[in-house]
Amino acid sequence: MSALRAACRAVAARDMAQDSAHDLAHLDRVWANAQAIADGEGGADMVVLCAAAYLHDLVNLPKDAPDRAQASMRSAQAAAPHLATLGMTPDRITATQHAIAAHSFSAGIPPETPEARILRDADRLDALGAIGIARAFAVSGALDRALYHANDPFAATRTPDDQSFSLDHWPAKLLRLPDGMSTETGRRIAQARVATMLRFARDLAAEIGHAPNGWAADG
Amino acid sequence: MSALRAACRAVAARDMAQDSAHDLAHLDRVWANAQAIADGEGGADMVVLCAAAYLHDLVNLPKDAPDRAQASMRSAQAAAPHLATLGMTPDRITATQHAIAAHSFSAGIPPETPEARILRDADRLDALGAIGIARAFAVSGALDRALYHANDPFAATRTPDDQSFSLDHWPAKLLRLPDGMSTETGRRIAQARVATMLRFARDLAAEIGHAPNGWAADG
Repeated sequence: MSALRAACRAVAARDMAQDSAHDLAHLDRVWANAQAIADGEGGADMVVLCAAAYLHDLVNLPKDAPDRAQASMRSAQAAAPHLATLGMTPDRITATQHAIAAHSFSAGIPPETPEARILRDADRLDALGAIGIARAFAVSGALDRALYHANDPFAATRTPDDQSFSLDHWPAKLLRLPDGMSTETGRRIAQARVATMLRFARDLAAEIGHAPNGWAADG
Repeated sequence: MSALRAACRAVAARDMAQDSAHDLAHLDRVWANAQAIADGEGGADMVVLCAAAYLHDLVNLPKDAPDRAQASMRSAQAAAPHLATLGMTPDRITATQHAIAAHSFSAGIPPETPEARILRDADRLDALGAIGIARAFAVSGALDRALYHANDPFAATRTPDDQSFSLDHWPAKLLRLPDGMSTETGRRIAQARVATMLRFARDLAAEIGHAPNGWAADG
Protein backbone atom coordinates (compact mmCIF):
# COMPACT_ATOMS: atom_id res chain seq x y z
CA MET A 1 0.00 0.00 0.00
CA SER A 2 2.78 2.45 0.82
CA ALA A 3 4.40 1.77 -2.57
CA LEU A 4 1.07 2.44 -4.33
CA ARG A 5 0.59 5.61 -2.26
CA ALA A 6 4.08 6.85 -3.15
CA ALA A 7 3.57 6.10 -6.84
CA CYS A 8 0.19 7.85 -7.03
CA ARG A 9 1.48 10.80 -5.00
CA ALA A 10 4.38 11.14 -7.47
CA VAL A 11 1.94 11.19 -10.39
CA ALA A 12 -0.01 13.98 -8.68
CA ALA A 13 3.16 15.91 -7.84
CA ARG A 14 4.08 15.88 -11.54
CA ASP A 15 0.71 16.20 -13.31
CA MET A 16 -1.78 17.93 -10.99
CA ALA A 17 -2.38 21.62 -11.66
CA GLN A 18 -1.60 22.72 -8.09
CA ASP A 19 -3.01 25.79 -6.42
CA SER A 20 -3.26 26.78 -2.76
CA ALA A 21 -6.48 24.76 -2.32
CA HIS A 22 -5.30 21.75 -4.35
CA ASP A 23 -1.81 20.68 -3.35
CA LEU A 24 -0.12 17.52 -2.12
CA ALA A 25 -1.03 18.34 1.47
CA HIS A 26 -4.72 18.33 0.43
CA LEU A 27 -4.27 14.88 -1.12
CA ASP A 28 -2.55 13.60 2.02
CA ARG A 29 -5.46 14.88 4.12
CA VAL A 30 -8.08 13.33 1.85
CA TRP A 31 -6.26 10.00 2.07
CA ALA A 32 -6.07 10.28 5.89
CA ASN A 33 -9.81 11.07 5.98
CA ALA A 34 -10.60 8.22 3.59
CA GLN A 35 -8.77 5.72 5.79
CA ALA A 36 -10.61 6.93 8.89
CA ILE A 37 -13.98 6.66 7.15
CA ALA A 38 -13.18 3.22 5.71
CA ASP A 39 -12.25 2.05 9.21
CA GLY A 40 -15.54 3.28 10.60
CA GLU A 41 -17.55 1.79 7.75
CA GLY A 42 -16.04 -1.68 8.16
CA GLY A 43 -13.58 -1.55 5.29
CA ALA A 44 -13.29 -0.86 1.57
CA ASP A 45 -10.97 -1.68 -1.32
CA MET A 46 -8.00 0.34 -0.07
CA VAL A 47 -6.10 0.00 -3.35
CA VAL A 48 -8.92 1.70 -5.21
CA LEU A 49 -9.43 4.23 -2.42
CA CYS A 50 -5.76 5.19 -2.22
CA ALA A 51 -5.41 5.66 -5.97
CA ALA A 52 -8.65 7.64 -6.12
CA ALA A 53 -7.60 9.87 -3.19
CA TYR A 54 -4.30 10.83 -4.80
CA LEU A 55 -5.56 11.25 -8.37
CA HIS A 56 -9.01 12.82 -7.77
CA ASP A 57 -7.86 16.38 -8.51
CA LEU A 58 -5.57 15.73 -11.48
CA VAL A 59 -7.63 18.18 -13.53
CA ASN A 60 -8.61 21.40 -11.72
CA LEU A 61 -10.63 24.13 -13.34
CA PRO A 62 -11.28 27.61 -11.93
CA LYS A 63 -14.58 28.06 -10.06
CA ASP A 64 -15.87 30.26 -12.86
CA ALA A 65 -14.79 28.02 -15.77
CA PRO A 66 -17.77 27.08 -18.01
CA ASP A 67 -16.64 23.42 -18.14
CA ARG A 68 -15.94 23.12 -14.42
CA ALA A 69 -18.59 20.39 -14.03
CA GLN A 70 -16.38 18.26 -16.30
CA ALA A 71 -13.26 18.47 -14.13
CA SER A 72 -13.83 15.29 -12.13
CA MET A 73 -14.71 13.29 -15.26
CA ARG A 74 -11.54 14.57 -16.91
CA SER A 75 -9.51 13.70 -13.81
CA ALA A 76 -10.91 10.15 -14.07
CA GLN A 77 -9.86 9.97 -17.71
CA ALA A 78 -6.40 11.35 -16.96
CA ALA A 79 -5.92 8.81 -14.16
CA ALA A 80 -6.56 5.70 -16.31
CA PRO A 81 -3.18 5.38 -18.08
CA HIS A 82 -1.31 5.86 -14.79
CA LEU A 83 -3.41 3.16 -13.12
CA ALA A 84 -2.66 0.75 -15.98
CA THR A 85 1.04 1.54 -15.73
CA LEU A 86 0.90 0.72 -12.02
CA GLY A 87 -0.45 -2.73 -12.93
CA MET A 88 -3.98 -2.23 -11.63
CA THR A 89 -6.65 -4.66 -12.86
CA PRO A 90 -9.32 -3.39 -15.28
CA ASP A 91 -12.05 -3.80 -12.62
CA ARG A 92 -10.12 -1.68 -10.17
CA ILE A 93 -9.33 0.92 -12.80
CA THR A 94 -13.04 1.23 -13.52
CA ALA A 95 -13.81 1.46 -9.80
CA THR A 96 -11.14 4.11 -9.24
CA GLN A 97 -12.39 6.13 -12.19
CA HIS A 98 -15.96 6.02 -10.89
CA ALA A 99 -14.87 7.22 -7.44
CA ILE A 100 -12.93 10.11 -8.99
CA ALA A 101 -15.71 11.09 -11.39
CA ALA A 102 -18.37 11.05 -8.65
CA HIS A 103 -16.42 12.94 -5.99
CA SER A 104 -17.36 16.49 -6.89
CA PHE A 105 -20.54 18.45 -6.24
CA SER A 106 -20.68 19.97 -9.67
CA ALA A 107 -20.42 16.72 -11.65
CA GLY A 108 -23.79 15.51 -10.35
CA ILE A 109 -22.77 11.81 -10.60
CA PRO A 110 -24.19 9.67 -7.75
CA PRO A 111 -21.54 7.60 -5.92
CA GLU A 112 -22.49 3.95 -6.42
CA THR A 113 -19.73 2.10 -4.55
CA PRO A 114 -18.37 2.25 -0.99
CA GLU A 115 -15.10 3.70 -2.32
CA ALA A 116 -16.92 6.45 -4.22
CA ARG A 117 -18.99 7.38 -1.17
CA ILE A 118 -15.92 7.38 1.06
CA LEU A 119 -13.82 9.53 -1.31
CA ARG A 120 -16.63 12.07 -1.67
CA ASP A 121 -17.01 12.38 2.10
CA ALA A 122 -13.22 12.46 2.63
CA ASP A 123 -12.86 15.36 0.21
CA ARG A 124 -15.73 17.31 1.79
CA LEU A 125 -14.35 16.82 5.29
CA ASP A 126 -11.34 18.86 4.20
CA ALA A 127 -13.62 21.91 4.06
CA LEU A 128 -14.54 21.51 7.75
CA GLY A 129 -12.84 21.78 11.13
CA ALA A 130 -9.60 23.62 11.81
CA ILE A 131 -8.31 22.83 8.33
CA GLY A 132 -11.60 24.04 6.85
CA ILE A 133 -11.26 27.32 8.76
CA ALA A 134 -7.71 27.75 7.45
CA ARG A 135 -8.68 26.97 3.86
CA ALA A 136 -11.76 29.18 3.87
CA PHE A 137 -9.87 32.25 5.10
CA ALA A 138 -6.96 31.58 2.71
CA VAL A 139 -9.33 31.37 -0.26
CA SER A 140 -11.17 34.54 0.72
CA GLY A 141 -7.86 36.34 1.24
CA ALA A 142 -6.81 35.34 -2.27
CA LEU A 143 -10.13 36.71 -3.57
CA ASP A 144 -9.71 39.89 -1.45
CA ARG A 145 -12.98 39.32 0.42
CA ALA A 146 -13.59 40.89 3.82
CA LEU A 147 -13.37 38.56 6.83
CA TYR A 148 -16.91 39.40 7.96
CA HIS A 149 -19.67 41.98 7.83
CA ALA A 150 -18.55 44.61 10.36
CA ASN A 151 -22.01 45.30 11.78
CA ASP A 152 -23.57 41.83 11.55
CA PRO A 153 -20.72 39.27 11.47
CA PHE A 154 -22.95 36.20 11.89
CA ALA A 155 -25.73 37.25 9.52
CA ALA A 156 -28.36 37.53 12.24
CA THR A 157 -30.39 40.11 10.32
CA ARG A 158 -29.45 39.62 6.67
CA THR A 159 -29.01 36.92 4.02
CA PRO A 160 -25.46 35.50 3.97
CA ASP A 161 -23.39 36.93 1.11
CA ASP A 162 -20.32 34.75 0.68
CA GLN A 163 -19.17 36.66 -2.38
CA SER A 164 -18.47 39.60 -0.07
CA PHE A 165 -17.75 38.12 3.37
CA SER A 166 -15.65 35.08 4.17
CA LEU A 167 -17.54 34.14 7.31
CA ASP A 168 -20.82 34.10 5.38
CA HIS A 169 -19.56 31.03 3.50
CA TRP A 170 -20.03 29.06 6.71
CA PRO A 171 -23.85 29.23 6.89
CA ALA A 172 -24.15 29.42 3.09
CA LYS A 173 -22.31 26.15 2.52
CA LEU A 174 -19.81 24.75 5.00
CA LEU A 175 -22.05 24.23 8.04
CA ARG A 176 -24.53 22.32 5.85
CA LEU A 177 -21.99 19.77 4.63
CA PRO A 178 -22.72 17.18 7.35
CA ASP A 179 -26.28 16.78 5.99
CA GLY A 180 -24.98 15.81 2.57
CA MET A 181 -22.50 13.18 3.70
CA SER A 182 -22.82 9.76 2.05
CA THR A 183 -21.52 7.62 4.93
CA GLU A 184 -22.44 7.49 8.60
CA THR A 185 -18.79 7.78 9.65
CA GLY A 186 -18.29 10.76 7.37
CA ARG A 187 -21.33 12.46 8.87
CA ARG A 188 -20.14 11.82 12.42
CA ILE A 189 -16.67 13.27 11.72
CA ALA A 190 -18.25 16.20 9.87
CA GLN A 191 -20.46 17.00 12.86
CA ALA A 192 -17.44 16.99 15.18
CA ARG A 193 -15.64 19.35 12.83
CA VAL A 194 -18.62 21.67 12.67
CA ALA A 195 -18.50 21.79 16.48
CA THR A 196 -14.85 22.91 16.19
CA MET A 197 -15.95 25.68 13.82
CA LEU A 198 -18.76 26.87 16.07
CA ARG A 199 -16.35 27.03 19.01
CA PHE A 200 -14.04 29.17 16.85
CA ALA A 201 -16.99 31.41 15.98
CA ARG A 202 -17.80 31.91 19.66
CA ASP A 203 -14.15 32.76 20.41
CA LEU A 204 -14.20 35.21 17.52
CA ALA A 205 -17.43 36.81 18.74
CA ALA A 206 -15.94 37.40 22.19
CA GLU A 207 -12.76 38.89 20.74
CA ILE A 208 -14.52 41.30 18.39
CA GLY A 209 -16.93 42.42 21.10
CA HIS A 210 -19.99 40.99 19.38
CA ALA A 211 -22.71 38.62 20.54
CA PRO A 212 -22.47 35.13 18.99
CA ASN A 213 -25.88 35.56 17.35
CA GLY A 214 -27.23 34.34 14.00
CA TRP A 215 -25.85 30.90 13.09
CA ALA A 216 -23.10 31.27 15.73
CA ALA A 217 -25.80 30.95 18.40
CA ASP A 218 -26.37 27.30 17.39
CA GLY A 219 -23.24 25.92 19.00
CA MET B 1 -17.62 59.44 23.42
CA SER B 2 -19.94 57.80 20.90
CA ALA B 3 -20.05 61.06 18.89
CA LEU B 4 -16.24 61.23 18.88
CA ARG B 5 -16.06 57.57 17.87
CA ALA B 6 -18.50 58.10 15.01
CA ALA B 7 -16.63 61.19 13.80
CA CYS B 8 -13.21 59.49 13.85
CA ARG B 9 -14.63 56.35 12.23
CA ALA B 10 -16.07 58.53 9.44
CA VAL B 11 -12.66 60.13 8.87
CA ALA B 12 -11.10 56.66 8.58
CA ALA B 13 -13.86 55.45 6.25
CA ARG B 14 -13.11 58.35 3.95
CA ASP B 15 -9.32 58.75 4.18
CA MET B 16 -7.76 55.42 5.21
CA ALA B 17 -6.20 53.38 2.41
CA GLN B 18 -8.20 50.21 3.18
CA ASP B 19 -7.04 46.70 2.43
CA SER B 20 -8.19 43.34 3.76
CA ALA B 21 -5.94 43.68 6.86
CA HIS B 22 -6.74 47.36 7.47
CA ASP B 23 -10.43 48.04 7.29
CA LEU B 24 -13.09 49.55 9.54
CA ALA B 25 -13.65 46.19 11.24
CA HIS B 26 -9.96 46.22 12.26
CA LEU B 27 -10.40 49.69 13.76
CA ASP B 28 -13.51 48.59 15.64
CA ARG B 29 -11.59 45.62 17.07
CA VAL B 30 -8.62 47.76 18.10
CA TRP B 31 -11.00 50.14 19.87
CA ALA B 32 -12.73 47.20 21.62
CA ASN B 33 -9.31 45.85 22.69
CA ALA B 34 -8.18 49.30 23.84
CA GLN B 35 -11.24 49.70 26.05
CA ALA B 36 -10.68 46.26 27.60
CA ILE B 37 -7.03 47.02 28.31
CA ALA B 38 -7.81 50.50 29.71
CA ASP B 39 -10.36 48.88 32.05
CA GLY B 40 -7.79 46.38 33.29
CA GLU B 41 -5.11 49.04 33.71
CA GLY B 42 -7.32 51.30 35.81
CA GLY B 43 -8.23 53.83 33.15
CA ALA B 44 -6.77 56.15 30.52
CA ASP B 45 -7.73 59.28 28.61
CA MET B 46 -10.48 57.65 26.55
CA VAL B 47 -10.83 60.65 24.22
CA VAL B 48 -7.20 60.31 23.19
CA LEU B 49 -7.43 56.53 23.05
CA CYS B 50 -10.56 56.49 20.88
CA ALA B 51 -9.18 59.01 18.39
CA ALA B 52 -5.86 57.16 18.23
CA ALA B 53 -7.58 53.79 17.73
CA TYR B 54 -9.62 55.01 14.76
CA LEU B 55 -6.90 57.09 13.11
CA HIS B 56 -3.81 54.92 13.74
CA ASP B 57 -3.77 53.38 10.25
CA LEU B 58 -4.65 56.43 8.17
CA VAL B 59 -1.46 55.91 6.15
CA ASN B 60 -0.73 52.29 5.18
CA LEU B 61 2.31 51.29 3.19
CA PRO B 62 2.98 47.84 1.68
CA LYS B 63 5.18 45.50 3.76
CA ASP B 64 7.98 45.85 1.20
CA ALA B 65 7.79 49.66 0.82
CA PRO B 66 11.17 51.31 1.59
CA ASP B 67 9.52 54.02 3.71
CA ARG B 68 7.24 51.64 5.62
CA ALA B 69 8.86 52.58 8.94
CA GLN B 70 7.45 56.08 8.35
CA ALA B 71 3.81 54.99 8.02
CA SER B 72 2.83 55.49 11.67
CA MET B 73 4.53 58.90 11.80
CA ARG B 74 2.70 59.93 8.65
CA SER B 75 -0.58 58.64 10.09
CA ALA B 76 0.05 60.85 13.12
CA GLN B 77 0.65 63.85 10.88
CA ALA B 78 -2.45 63.10 8.80
CA ALA B 79 -4.58 62.81 11.94
CA ALA B 80 -3.73 66.27 13.33
CA PRO B 81 -6.01 68.47 11.21
CA HIS B 82 -8.97 66.16 11.82
CA LEU B 83 -8.37 66.25 15.57
CA ALA B 84 -8.29 70.05 15.49
CA THR B 85 -11.51 70.13 13.48
CA LEU B 86 -13.13 67.92 16.11
CA GLY B 87 -12.24 70.57 18.72
CA MET B 88 -9.58 68.57 20.56
CA THR B 89 -7.19 70.52 22.81
CA PRO B 90 -3.54 70.91 21.71
CA ASP B 91 -2.36 68.66 24.57
CA ARG B 92 -4.70 65.89 23.53
CA ILE B 93 -3.75 66.29 19.88
CA THR B 94 -0.10 65.85 20.85
CA ALA B 95 -0.97 62.81 22.99
CA THR B 96 -3.04 61.23 20.22
CA GLN B 97 -0.27 61.82 17.70
CA HIS B 98 2.30 60.20 19.99
CA ALA B 99 0.11 57.12 20.49
CA ILE B 100 -0.37 56.77 16.73
CA ALA B 101 3.32 57.32 15.92
CA ALA B 102 4.49 54.80 18.55
CA HIS B 103 2.00 52.01 17.76
CA SER B 104 3.94 50.17 15.07
CA PHE B 105 6.86 47.76 15.35
CA SER B 106 8.75 49.25 12.46
CA ALA B 107 8.72 52.88 13.66
CA GLY B 108 10.88 52.04 16.70
CA ILE B 109 9.34 54.82 18.81
CA PRO B 110 8.96 53.86 22.50
CA PRO B 111 5.42 54.42 23.87
CA GLU B 112 5.73 56.98 26.67
CA THR B 113 2.13 57.37 27.85
CA PRO B 114 -0.56 54.96 29.05
CA GLU B 115 -2.58 55.65 25.91
CA ALA B 116 0.38 54.87 23.64
CA ARG B 117 1.09 51.61 25.48
CA ILE B 118 -2.57 50.61 25.35
CA LEU B 119 -2.97 51.37 21.63
CA ARG B 120 0.16 49.40 20.78
CA ASP B 121 -1.05 46.37 22.71
CA ALA B 122 -4.59 46.71 21.35
CA ASP B 123 -3.29 46.66 17.77
CA ARG B 124 -1.04 43.64 18.42
CA LEU B 125 -3.86 41.69 20.06
CA ASP B 126 -5.64 41.77 16.71
CA ALA B 127 -2.95 39.42 15.37
CA LEU B 128 -3.79 36.80 18.01
CA GLY B 129 -6.68 34.51 18.91
CA ALA B 130 -9.45 33.45 16.55
CA ILE B 131 -9.27 36.79 14.71
CA GLY B 132 -5.48 36.40 14.44
CA ILE B 133 -5.94 32.94 12.91
CA ALA B 134 -8.42 34.33 10.39
CA ARG B 135 -6.21 37.28 9.47
CA ALA B 136 -3.03 35.20 9.16
CA PHE B 137 -4.61 32.69 6.77
CA ALA B 138 -6.27 35.46 4.75
CA VAL B 139 -2.97 37.28 4.33
CA SER B 140 -1.11 34.13 3.32
CA GLY B 141 -3.89 33.26 0.86
CA ALA B 142 -3.53 36.68 -0.73
CA LEU B 143 0.24 36.06 -1.00
CA ASP B 144 -0.39 32.53 -2.37
CA ARG B 145 1.58 30.87 0.43
CA ALA B 146 0.99 27.21 1.36
CA LEU B 147 -0.96 26.60 4.56
CA TYR B 148 1.84 24.51 6.08
CA HIS B 149 4.86 22.36 5.29
CA ALA B 150 3.34 19.03 4.23
CA ASN B 151 5.92 16.81 5.96
CA ASP B 152 6.68 18.93 9.04
CA PRO B 153 3.69 21.24 9.64
CA PHE B 154 4.84 22.48 13.07
CA ALA B 155 8.52 22.96 12.22
CA ALA B 156 9.74 20.26 14.59
CA THR B 157 12.88 19.57 12.55
CA ARG B 158 13.50 22.75 10.55
CA THR B 159 13.69 26.54 10.92
CA PRO B 160 10.29 28.22 10.43
CA ASP B 161 9.97 29.79 6.98
CA ASP B 162 7.02 32.15 7.03
CA GLN B 163 7.69 33.38 3.52
CA SER B 164 6.68 29.91 2.30
CA PHE B 165 4.29 28.51 4.91
CA SER B 166 1.48 30.36 6.65
CA LEU B 167 1.61 28.28 9.83
CA ASP B 168 5.33 29.05 10.23
CA HIS B 169 4.38 32.68 10.94
CA TRP B 170 3.03 31.51 14.28
CA PRO B 171 6.36 30.49 15.87
CA ALA B 172 8.29 33.09 13.85
CA LYS B 173 6.23 36.01 15.14
CA LEU B 174 2.69 35.62 16.43
CA LEU B 175 3.26 33.28 19.37
CA ARG B 176 5.98 35.62 20.67
CA LEU B 177 3.76 38.68 20.78
CA PRO B 178 2.72 38.26 24.45
CA ASP B 179 6.36 38.77 25.51
CA GLY B 180 6.47 42.17 23.84
CA MET B 181 3.28 43.57 25.33
CA SER B 182 3.56 46.93 27.08
CA THR B 183 0.77 46.48 29.64
CA GLU B 184 -0.01 43.70 32.08
CA THR B 185 -3.62 43.49 30.88
CA GLY B 186 -2.49 43.33 27.27
CA ARG B 187 -0.11 40.49 28.11
CA ARG B 188 -2.80 38.56 29.97
CA ILE B 189 -5.27 38.83 27.06
CA ALA B 190 -2.49 37.95 24.61
CA GLN B 191 -1.65 34.79 26.55
CA ALA B 192 -5.31 33.72 26.52
CA ARG B 193 -5.43 34.27 22.78
CA VAL B 194 -2.25 32.26 22.26
CA ALA B 195 -3.96 29.43 24.15
CA THR B 196 -6.82 29.64 21.63
CA MET B 197 -4.30 29.36 18.81
CA LEU B 198 -2.53 26.36 20.34
CA ARG B 199 -5.87 24.60 20.76
CA PHE B 200 -6.56 25.25 17.07
CA ALA B 201 -3.13 23.82 16.22
CA ARG B 202 -3.88 20.64 18.15
CA ASP B 203 -7.24 20.29 16.38
CA LEU B 204 -5.47 20.80 13.07
CA ALA B 205 -2.83 18.20 13.93
CA ALA B 206 -5.49 15.60 14.71
CA GLU B 207 -7.37 16.34 11.48
CA ILE B 208 -4.34 16.11 9.22
CA GLY B 209 -3.15 12.91 10.88
CA HIS B 210 0.01 14.50 12.29
CA ALA B 211 1.44 14.63 15.80
CA PRO B 212 1.19 18.09 17.42
CA ASN B 213 4.97 18.31 17.69
CA GLY B 214 7.36 21.28 17.37
CA TRP B 215 5.82 24.47 18.81
CA ALA B 216 2.35 22.85 18.79
CA ALA B 217 3.53 20.56 21.59
CA ASP B 218 3.74 23.57 23.95
CA GLY B 219 0.00 23.94 24.49
